[in-house]
Amino acid sequence: MPEAASPRRWEARARALGDRQTRVAEGACFVEGIRAVCEAMDGGVPFEAVLICRERLRSAVAIAAVDRLAASGVPCAEVPLSRFARLSEMDNPVGLAAVLRWAPLPLAALPPPEASSLYVIAEDLGDPGNLGTLLRTADGAGAAGVIVAGAGTDPAHRRCLRASLGTAFRLPVAHVADPADALAWAKAAGIRTLATSAHGRQTLWSLAIPPGVPLAAVLGSEERGLRPETASACDDSLRIPMLGAATSLNVAVAAGVILYELRRRGAVNL
Amino acid sequence: MPEAASPRRWEARARALGDRQTRVAEGACFVEGIRAVCEAMDGGVPFEAVLICRERLRSAVAIAAVDRLAASGVPCAEVPLSRFARLSEMDNPVGLAAVLRWAPLPLAALPPPEASSLYVIAEDLGDPGNLGTLLRTADGAGAAGVIVAGAGTDPAHRRCLRASLGTAFRLPVAHVADPADALAWAKAAGIRTLATSAHGRQTLWSLAIPPGVPLAAVLGSEERGLRPETASACDDSLRIPMLGAATSLNVAVAAGVILYELRRRGAVNL
Repeated sequence: MPEAASPRRWEARARALGDRQTRVAEGACFVEGIRAVCEAMDGGVPFEAVLICRERLRSAVAIAAVDRLAASGVPCAEVPLSRFARLSEMDNPVGLAAVLRWAPLPLAALPPPEASSLYVIAEDLGDPGNLGTLLRTADGAGAAGVIVAGAGTDPAHRRCLRASLGTAFRLPVAHVADPADALAWAKAAGIRTLATSAHGRQTLWSLAIPPGVPLAAVLGSEERGLRPETASACDDSLRIPMLGAATSLNVAVAAGVILYELRRRGAVNL
Repeated sequence: MPEAASPRRWEARARALGDRQTRVAEGACFVEGIRAVCEAMDGGVPFEAVLICRERLRSAVAIAAVDRLAASGVPCAEVPLSRFARLSEMDNPVGLAAVLRWAPLPLAALPPPEASSLYVIAEDLGDPGNLGTLLRTADGAGAAGVIVAGAGTDPAHRRCLRASLGTAFRLPVAHVADPADALAWAKAAGIRTLATSAHGRQTLWSLAIPPGVPLAAVLGSEERGLRPETASACDDSLRIPMLGAATSLNVAVAAGVILYELRRRGAVNL
C-alpha cells in the first residue's frame, strides 16, 4: 500500500498550483478525477504525489491506479473527506487527485508532421472547459498535436485537464504566447494552415485540399473569432455552414466537425 | 422606458424556477444572458418579466431589447447589483435576465419531417451545459428538432438555456420521459433512427443512407451510452472512429460531427 506522505503539504501545493504563474514557473499542475489521473499514469507523466480520500475512493480502477503509483514510489497523501471536499471542484468528489510534473510543450518539442497529420491551433480561448473538450476532440480525431496560442486559458488549468479526460497527457500540447510564432512554426514544418471564421472563403465542404499535405485548423476565441492578422496569415480560410439561428458553434464542436471532415477526406481519398 | 415592477417578487419567482417540478408544472423558466434573452424575444417566446441590473447593463443590444420588451408591456424589474449578483451564475453578470413562459414541447407538437430533415434524440443526458451545447449544435446544423428523452436533464434548466445561447427558443425541442416513445414517434413519422455507440456496426463514413429519408441521430449518456433497448430498437447503428487515447467524444461534439456529415451528404448528393 502507498507510502505515507504529509497530506497538508500536498494540499497546500495543490492550492498553490491554482495560480498560473506558479504552474508555469514550476512546470507542475494539479488534476482531479479518475480518468485524468489514470491517463497521466498511462501517458508516463511524472507524479509528485497522489492525493486520495479513503472515504470516497470506491472505483476498482482508481484503487488499482493508486496501488501502481505507490509501488513505483509516488508519495500518497491520504486526505480526510472534510478537507478533500474543499480541494475538490466536483459535486461528488471521487477521492482521487494528483500533483503532476506536466506543462504544455514549447513549439520546438512538437513532433514533426507526417503526410496525413492534423493539428489544431487554438487562439485566445477563454474557457478552460472548452479548451479541455477541444483537446479531447483533437485526440479523438487522431490529431498530431494542439497548439494553444495567445493570451487565453492555460492548458494546465485543472478544469482544462479534467474536461480533456486526461487526453492532455496523451496528445502533444504546446503553448505559445504569440500566435504568429505558431503560424511560423507550421509554415516551416510544411503544414498548411486553415483559418476558420464566419467569413471563410470556402465552406468546409467545398474547400479544396491538396492530397498528402499536413493540415492545421486554426480557431479563434468564441467572442471575437480569430485575430485579423492571424486569419490573413493563414494559407486558406473556411467556414462551417450555419443553417439555423446560431451564428457560431462551440469551439470544441467546430474543431470536431472540421477535424473529422479532414480525416474523412484522407480516409476515403476524395 | 420600462414599466415599474416589483423586483423582489420576480427574484423570488426566478429562484422558485430553479426547481424542475415547478418549471414543469408552470411551463415557465428563468434565463440569464444577452444572447439567450434576445433569442427568446426574437423567437416570440412570451415574457413574464425582464430582470435588469442598471449598474451592469452596458450593451447597446441589451438596452434596446429591454426597451422593446417594455414597449410591448413586459414588466421590467430593476434589481440592485448586490441582489442581482446572488441571482446570477455568471462571474461578471451582464445585468440581463428574464422569466419566460417556455417549456419543451410534447412529441405531438414537433413539426413533421421533410425529405432532408435531421433530428437528434438525446437520451439520459446528465449535464445541462452539454445539453445546451448540443441544442446550439443541432441548430447550427439546421436540425428540424431535438427530442430530449429519459430521466436526464431538463431542457428548461437555466444552464442548458444559457449554453444553448438561446437556440433552445428557436429550434423545436421536445421532452419525453420514455425513450421508446421518441422512437415510436420517429417510426410513425418515417424518420430513420441511427443509434450512435462505440459498437456501431458501421462507421459514420461507411454508413449507407437512403436518399431523401429524414434521419434522427440517437445519442446516449456519456457515462453509459445508449440504453441497450434503445440501441437495438433503432433502424441502424454507427460509430465515430476514435483515433487517439479517448474512447468517446463529448456528446455535443459527437452530435456536431454526425449532423454535419449527414448534412454534407445531402448537400453534395453522395
